[in-house]
Amino acid sequence: MTASTPLEPVESFDYVIFGATGDLTMRKLLPALYRRFAEGQITADSRIVGTARSPLDDETYRERARKALGEHVRADELIDATVNRFLRLVHYVSLNGAESTGNWDGLKTLLESNASADRVRVFYLATAPDLYGEIARNVSEQGLRSDTSRIVLEKPIGTDLDTARKVNENVGRYFPENSIFRIDHYLGKEAVQNIIALRFANPMLERMWDRESIDYVQITAAETVGLEGRGGYYDGSGALRDMIQNHLLQVLTVVAMERPESLDADALRDEKVRVLTSLKPLDRNNLRANVARGQYVQGTAGGKAVPAYREELPGETESNTETFVALKAEIDNDRWQGVPFYLRSGKRMPEKVTEVVVQFRAGEPGLFGEARPGSRLVIRVQPNESVTLPLFVKHPGNSFGLDEVDALSKLGQPERIRYRDSYEGLMLDAVKGSPALFVRKDETEAAWKWVTPILEGWSQDETGPDSYEAGTWGPESARELLQQAGHVWVEDIAA
Amino acid sequence: MTASTPLEPVESFDYVIFGATGDLTMRKLLPALYRRFAEGQITADSRIVGTARSPLDDETYRERARKALGEHVRADELIDATVNRFLRLVHYVSLNGAESTGNWDGLKTLLESNASADRVRVFYLATAPDLYGEIARNVSEQGLRSDTSRIVLEKPIGTDLDTARKVNENVGRYFPENSIFRIDHYLGKEAVQNIIALRFANPMLERMWDRESIDYVQITAAETVGLEGRGGYYDGSGALRDMIQNHLLQVLTVVAMERPESLDADALRDEKVRVLTSLKPLDRNNLRANVARGQYVQGTAGGKAVPAYREELPGETESNTETFVALKAEIDNDRWQGVPFYLRSGKRMPEKVTEVVVQFRAGEPGLFGEARPGSRLVIRVQPNESVTLPLFVKHPGNSFGLDEVDALSKLGQPERIRYRDSYEGLMLDAVKGSPALFVRKDETEAAWKWVTPILEGWSQDETGPDSYEAGTWGPESARELLQQAGHVWVEDIAA
Repeated sequence: MTASTPLEPVESFDYVIFGATGDLTMRKLLPALYRRFAEGQITADSRIVGTARSPLDDETYRERARKALGEHVRADELIDATVNRFLRLVHYVSLNGAESTGNWDGLKTLLESNASADRVRVFYLATAPDLYGEIARNVSEQGLRSDTSRIVLEKPIGTDLDTARKVNENVGRYFPENSIFRIDHYLGKEAVQNIIALRFANPMLERMWDRESIDYVQITAAETVGLEGRGGYYDGSGALRDMIQNHLLQVLTVVAMERPESLDADALRDEKVRVLTSLKPLDRNNLRANVARGQYVQGTAGGKAVPAYREELPGETESNTETFVALKAEIDNDRWQGVPFYLRSGKRMPEKVTEVVVQFRAGEPGLFGEARPGSRLVIRVQPNESVTLPLFVKHPGNSFGLDEVDALSKLGQPERIRYRDSYEGLMLDAVKGSPALFVRKDETEAAWKWVTPILEGWSQDETGPDSYEAGTWGPESARELLQQAGHVWVEDIAA
Repeated sequence: MTASTPLEPVESFDYVIFGATGDLTMRKLLPALYRRFAEGQITADSRIVGTARSPLDDETYRERARKALGEHVRADELIDATVNRFLRLVHYVSLNGAESTGNWDGLKTLLESNASADRVRVFYLATAPDLYGEIARNVSEQGLRSDTSRIVLEKPIGTDLDTARKVNENVGRYFPENSIFRIDHYLGKEAVQNIIALRFANPMLERMWDRESIDYVQITAAETVGLEGRGGYYDGSGALRDMIQNHLLQVLTVVAMERPESLDADALRDEKVRVLTSLKPLDRNNLRANVARGQYVQGTAGGKAVPAYREELPGETESNTETFVALKAEIDNDRWQGVPFYLRSGKRMPEKVTEVVVQFRAGEPGLFGEARPGSRLVIRVQPNESVTLPLFVKHPGNSFGLDEVDALSKLGQPERIRYRDSYEGLMLDAVKGSPALFVRKDETEAAWKWVTPILEGWSQDETGPDSYEAGTWGPESARELLQQAGHVWVEDIAA
């Protein structure tokens, strides 16, 4: 079976999107649904119901959706007739999901028309996170929730452990945990999912996956952009909350987890939670040695001078928010004792890249001449998902020189990418009720439990973040974090 | 560095070939030297001196050589001007190397003209093996051997342990062991040499290389041809002597040896000998359970009816010579206890193929659905040298289906083949005095020591070989050999 094998359609559904006029819906959700529709996975009697405060009718909303597809779907995938057929699935109900007084009856009537009682409903919350509890309550109290309903929550779930618990509690009051789908689109990435297959389907790799063979792991998510107008939200969040607590810790769990009993959602997530709860605590007492935080100052991006973070903020605030964080996480178990997991994320980096680098220890020296560094398994999450696993082979001819070949070069080939965007697979997983690639309540909370003391430590440290020039790989302190152990960031190896 | 990087020329040399009008010289040795010359590795003042009984002059021999190149070198590599330049290196001296009375003075004068005293001389014995001792004696007694002389011996070295010892003794009387180059062209194969690099340069594979991970190993050398006019020689030899004792046991040592101290010739060969001396003895007491021998009867080859072996023999003799042998070798050490090495060679097989199949044990079942068989590392020696190492990766899309990708597909690409023929590298290794890929005295003798009791057992067993139809994979007894352990020959897996 290749990626071009037609996929089975999922059962008919109603997708109710709260926040339907927002950026995420237009940029990601509608394009994802369109692509799945175009590939035949969505039946023509399914419905996509946008809701938001704006008073729009179906036709106006469809025109907005058409425009969004035009902007965010590749031209060669946009076929007029297909777009027209897709838009027939789209409806709009003007409604503020957080208020009980809106046109809920209209939404209810729509959902109950032409649909059996056990038809799948997905409520996708693409709104401000502080509305999640209220929306869940209204959906439930207005009688929209059925036994085949799921609710999808976008990040962030809270801003620290307490607030995360509160969100989970508020939503959990109206939806059972197995119907709550906390989305982390990194888990929808082919390359991230492949870590699981590679690790557990190949004894060769499985045997190498421990402290005896692995020297250290790096997980990087670097952006080249700065604030991009997200100033208000971002300044209240920062890189640790925005990227590490969710995406990077999720990737870490997939890299580090023990072999699960099965690939069932809960077996998988049990093991992921176990990783999170085994992370050695970081707090104000050991923060300096293990965490570097940075904030960019003026520099260069794409060959152009760009302003400092503080200059981009409304009113040029004296903010201490970190636009970069690098930290050394350690996992307190047999497999990983002594193996640092370096996590790093930042804005205004030289390159847009998300990748995992698994640095193997060097082999026994001597046999093939000069000492060689250990191999590196590189899992590129974006751009251009791929996995690179070098193997050493003999150089052609009668001598024992070595060449490095990439054992997994085929994974980067286009036919091995099913989804252009990770939302495509995940949105349908919610329809199917397959929560394996979504974040369970205890995972979110375990991640926050580990992250919150770092935030607290910082709030008590008046020094604030270290400066780094826009267009560089962060402050010197990030490099020093690895130097202690004789390690280097991947871009310094390559250089 | 790629295979197309120019290679360093070797130092100037004189290559003296005994048996210069024979098939091996014409088909292999001259073409190999031509290709190395064409690639710039042989200097224009080097000389190739053919000797044989026929009374030819240089020009006549050159014309024979030209014809041989025309037949055995690919047309796109045959450039008239290059051929002409190459033939200027070629000389001929009419001489029976086994007799002391011939034109040795002529040969001596030629070798001593235009050459310094420390110029490398290689005496290549492409004659009947029973002449090796006499030729060595004459070369030495006629004063042709210098400190920078080497002698290359073709297989077979003897026909059993005693005769092999005698050959080694006779040649060893005149040449020190480090100047004796016993050629086994299988060791010149890129794919065979790559086993060493793959095993010892990749901790991932090194860790998998033992009885815990490997279920069994198959080494097959199958020919489609029958006797091809070699009746006289072959009927006195048989598959065990002709293929197993040398080629297949050599490949086995490379697959099975412990990590050597270094890649120096002796360190490497010490480990290879250790494998041979650790082989569990096979003799008449356990022969039936561990060895299958066969002889082909009438059948089909290339869609045509072909006669039985006995019909091909001169006078249709009632021969018991085996044209097929399959055996189960076991190595009595920690690494390999309980892992069968199945060796097999035969004529009139369905396919011409030489390959090693390393069958890994199945991984833990369950995680990825139905039980999968273990992976197989396939080292294809000929035709089209390649190494195939399957890795399992996730099938594209949000599901945990698996696809198999070949981790080493690049090794089969043309640019990774330096030599079209294994003689090319080996003939120059003899010039360089690099014996790593040649068979040491104790290796030959250890191999014979293991093989001889099998021959003796057979000679006492009047049943003779089992019949198999030409164009099949040998007698049923070969299949039964594996069935006892629940194993199957690779063609039965693939089918």
